[in-house]
Amino acid sequence: MELDSHGTLLSAIVAVLALVFYFYTSFYVAQARSKYKIEPPAVTGDARFERAYRVQMNTLEQLVFFLPLLCLATIYYRALGWLPAALGAVWVVGRFLYMRGYIIDPKRRAAGFGIAALAQLALLLLTIWGIAKSWS
Amino acid sequence: MELDSHGTLLSAIVAVLALVFYFYTSFYVAQARSKYKIEPPAVTGDARFERAYRVQMNTLEQLVFFLPLLCLATIYYRALGWLPAALGAVWVVGRFLYMRGYIIDPKRRAAGFGIAALAQLALLLLTIWGIAKSWS
Amino acid sequence: MELDSHGTLLSAIVAVLALVFYFYTSFYVAQARSKYKIEPPAVTGDARFERAYRVQMNTLEQLVFFLPLLCLATIYYRALGWLPAALGAVWVVGRFLYMRGYIIDPKRRAAGFGIAALAQLALLLLTIWGIAKSWS
Repeated sequence: MELDSHGTLLSAIVAVLALVFYFYTSFYVAQARSKYKIEPPAVTGDARFERAYRVQMNTLEQLVFFLPLLCLATIYYRALGWLPAALGAVWVVGRFLYMRGYIIDPKRRAAGFGIAALAQLALLLLTIWGIAKSWS
Repeated sequence: MELDSHGTLLSAIVAVLALVFYFYTSFYVAQARSKYKIEPPAVTGDARFERAYRVQMNTLEQLVFFLPLLCLATIYYRALGWLPAALGAVWVVGRFLYMRGYIIDPKRRAAGFGIAALAQLALLLLTIWGIAKSWS
Repeated sequence: MELDSHGTLLSAIVAVLALVFYFYTSFYVAQARSKYKIEPPAVTGDARFERAYRVQMNTLEQLVFFLPLLCLATIYYRALGWLPAALGAVWVVGRFLYMRGYIIDPKRRAAGFGIAALAQLALLLLTIWGIAKSWS
């Protein structure tokens, strides 16, 4: 693997974007905590705070899945070096739509969630394909 | 490090298995959410939902520990290239037993938890050993 | 990247320290669970347990941000190989102070939180700088 190839660098940039987005979701929770006066360690008490907190937690839950897959797909899928990064960018956009939807109304979280889930599934398939090719 | 060596590929396969298992625990929560009618953003209200949710959260908590150790042990412990992957496979089996036990009765989570914890401890020791050998 | 260079090994050691600290926060929760008699799957019921649980969750939330940044900064920032590891060590110390403060009184979590956040920000800047240098 070329750590300095443009494909790998694109994946690194997308990883940074995903981390900055995740930071934004936790910053939003901290703001909601002071705005709706939820004293730590409580994480309940106001539906708007709870929605912001669920967005952060769900982004965390997905990030733990997303980052290793982005990393593995970048390492093992070499046919199109930019493809893992492109799917990663789709993931970030999907999670942003998920956040925007959820904060207005939990029922509106589905579209963004689905987009990010499809990008993750594609990264999983690239990883499996890449490992299978490397093995043989 | 040879990214295409069979030991490294085995570790990558186990990482994918761990991620797929983690996905399964969160899918199970989504199912429990609709089955027991827990409206988001709530995460309480039915003991069966709460158990499923705790299984996911605990798997997340452990995964954040497990994946970096699997990665570090694979990079730095080179005496037996397949050993980190084998310990990783034990971890996945242990977490599966943990989930099956917890969902029946929280008291039955101990055996699976212990198996996974021992596998993690072994990965930690391999990592420390590998770093110490690489340093000198 | 030289996986066996001393800078890279220092980062690996700091990653292990961060993981061991995170393990300590979850071990502390398990202790608090039995001490204050919080039956799983509950995560509420005693303020001391809730504080310990929040420390673990917050450490998890930050760790997911910290470890990838430590890894990316170590890979792409090459001017001073020991600097990512040094910032990582500051992060571990900050999180320890955060934990000690929070357990006494949630209001006393700010200093440690801030130290760790600054170390993370510095790692983020090193990563962006390193990627920009590698691209050109």
